Amino acid sequence: MQSSAYAHRLHSLLSPSPSRTQIRNPTRIRMSLRDDGPSVAIVGATGAVGQEFLSVLSDRDFPYRSIKLLASRRSAGKVQTFEDRSYKIEELTAESFDGVDIALFSAGGSISKEFGPIAVEKGSVVVDNSSAFRMDPGVPLVIPEVNPEAMGHIGLGKGKGALIANPNCSTIICLMAATPLHRYAKVLRMVVSTYQAASGAGAAAMEELELQTREVLDGKEPTCKIFKQQYAFNLFSHNAPVLSNGYNEEEMKLVKETQKIWNDKDVKVTATCIRVPVMRAHAESVNLQFEKPLDEDTARQILNGAAGVVVIDDRASNSFPTPLQVSNKDDVAVGRIRQDLSQDGNYGLDIFVCGDQIRKGAALNAVQIAEKLL
Amino acid sequence: MQSSAYAHRLHSLLSPSPSRTQIRNPTRIRMSLRDDGPSVAIVGATGAVGQEFLSVLSDRDFPYRSIKLLASRRSAGKVQTFEDRSYKIEELTAESFDGVDIALFSAGGSISKEFGPIAVEKGSVVVDNSSAFRMDPGVPLVIPEVNPEAMGHIGLGKGKGALIANPNCSTIICLMAATPLHRYAKVLRMVVSTYQAASGAGAAAMEELELQTREVLDGKEPTCKIFKQQYAFNLFSHNAPVLSNGYNEEEMKLVKETQKIWNDKDVKVTATCIRVPVMRAHAESVNLQFEKPLDEDTARQILNGAAGVVVIDDRASNSFPTPLQVSNKDDVAVGRIRQDLSQDGNYGLDIFVCGDQIRKGAALNAVQIAEKLL
Repeated sequence: MQSSAYAHRLHSLLSPSPSRTQIRNPTRIRMSLRDDGPSVAIVGATGAVGQEFLSVLSDRDFPYRSIKLLASRRSAGKVQTFEDRSYKIEELTAESFDGVDIALFSAGGSISKEFGPIAVEKGSVVVDNSSAFRMDPGVPLVIPEVNPEAMGHIGLGKGKGALIANPNCSTIICLMAATPLHRYAKVLRMVVSTYQAASGAGAAAMEELELQTREVLDGKEPTCKIFKQQYAFNLFSHNAPVLSNGYNEEEMKLVKETQKIWNDKDVKVTATCIRVPVMRAHAESVNLQFEKPLDEDTARQILNGAAGVVVIDDRASNSFPTPLQVSNKDDVAVGRIRQDLSQDGNYGLDIFVCGDQIRKGAALNAVQIAEKLL
Repeated sequence: MQSSAYAHRLHSLLSPSPSRTQIRNPTRIRMSLRDDGPSVAIVGATGAVGQEFLSVLSDRDFPYRSIKLLASRRSAGKVQTFEDRSYKIEELTAESFDGVDIALFSAGGSISKEFGPIAVEKGSVVVDNSSAFRMDPGVPLVIPEVNPEAMGHIGLGKGKGALIANPNCSTIICLMAATPLHRYAKVLRMVVSTYQAASGAGAAAMEELELQTREVLDGKEPTCKIFKQQYAFNLFSHNAPVLSNGYNEEEMKLVKETQKIWNDKDVKVTATCIRVPVMRAHAESVNLQFEKPLDEDTARQILNGAAGVVVIDDRASNSFPTPLQVSNKDDVAVGRIRQDLSQDGNYGLDIFVCGDQIRKGAALNAVQIAEKLL
């Protein structure tokens, strides 16, 4: 729980004061236990995303009959307070899923691969935040605002389990802004450059960024454990393994997941994924090429009306989205909406998107999927 | 001089230890006064770039008969030690350029506009680091490795002055890597996203980033003077004014300067310029579309042989350019060289480029122009 306490402390240090932001705050309504709610299990409950699952469930008044917090043996036995009740963290085993309706997984790909099918076998609907099943043709990959129809007939109380995959954070944040435009004018090609926060590599990476920053400011050598090189006051190509085509796995997720979510094998995507010394929200510079003209005013109008999207695009005051503005917020912010000068007619747009990596990029999206099941 | 001392101290804090980098270090040879050298004036001598002019002149053993340090009245009278000699900073006036062969300007656009023509009138060749004359059709805009021919017959000892403009930092860094490829396969379109350092906004911006970082880590409200919003652990759209087409001035420099330097009005460029919390080196994600196929192996070979460029592109060890690696270095580093999946055939490449903003992005490039005059 130390990492999570850390992440929360850091949030208070690094998030803007309320008066500075125009993003909608998530409504905080105390939820209560409900007999008619599903039984929920959280796998990886002590991690950054696991903790955010709890925040989001509470923020959104998600109904539940019971909640079970699962983690590795190392964390088992610790006590977590949630909505004024104390829960003992339980060790994840094959028996953990008996009677569980919804299992929210965020404990890494290998845990998902091992325990996801077991949970399904026991009748749970698994919403998996790892990359383990995302490209599995039988598993829906869902952003609720984008492709809820992909969930098909998956539901609760049908006596059988199912797997639903949560897309990668950078895909979710990009497609939250690109999809409303895609629906209007069909995206043919997308060139994405990311500015990714520490949180994508977990709470330990956030701690490392803070520690290194203190060290560098004190004139000391930075401690490099999570990343092999200095992160403070620096940036570097995403640490995911690089494939033989020269793309790293993070970039290929953007390419492949976009094609799957849009159900469009022909959409062309290229991406360059970079880690920047920011705590918990990603930014993305997105260049779009459309099948038919889409002028910037129409684009702004479309985005203004899009669910889960807020437009911050004031040229006169140079006010555009920043990672800090969206930190701990639900909405993805989009700005710098402009006609691409390098494309003829109105066939191209440039936009700049920011979204909270832990929230909409992971926990919130998963909980929204769970809400669709109710 | 405080800012400069600051920048140097911060350099020692924030630059990597020599063993960590594979970039060539500039050769440091003590130069001496030479009777046959030109007389040199530095306008804006106390600024970050002005101070870097001195470092670069010394590093490169630039011959000079005399050197004159010019600044505003506020700094006049201060003493600067340079190569074991003491120089009094002089106030910039119309008389400052009497007998000056080469004047290196970096004191902002309005100073250049006022005093550049005066210096030319007095017979000086002005190398101007501001944007004042860059788009003037009569003024060459020069990156010595890219378009030295644009300098035409400008030279010293011809009894008449001239103006040469130094391109903007992000243009220089981008084109150092893109031009060798452009020469081979002609770039038709370029999509650039930048990751720009504090130094581009001057030494005071670097100080603000450090101060804010300390404040945020101490749980205090960050002091915002240079920038209107929190910079520490954040990033934001470049602070240059935004034009009616939605691009900011920094982005339009990349568009327009590329067309001028390549002498190609038809090359299509779009750019999104973002400031990231890094001290003094820029990074750029560059997507290229060519007129004819260019495979990534050929591209790597071309870049390996390009002057002023170093290739850092080791996929197995995930070693690619970072701002820290190129800080205080002459070479621009390029990596992530890969065939763009979103373009058919071998007509597209993605690359990632890093270069020191103060050095190759400003002072070094200007001194290299001055060297061409000798």
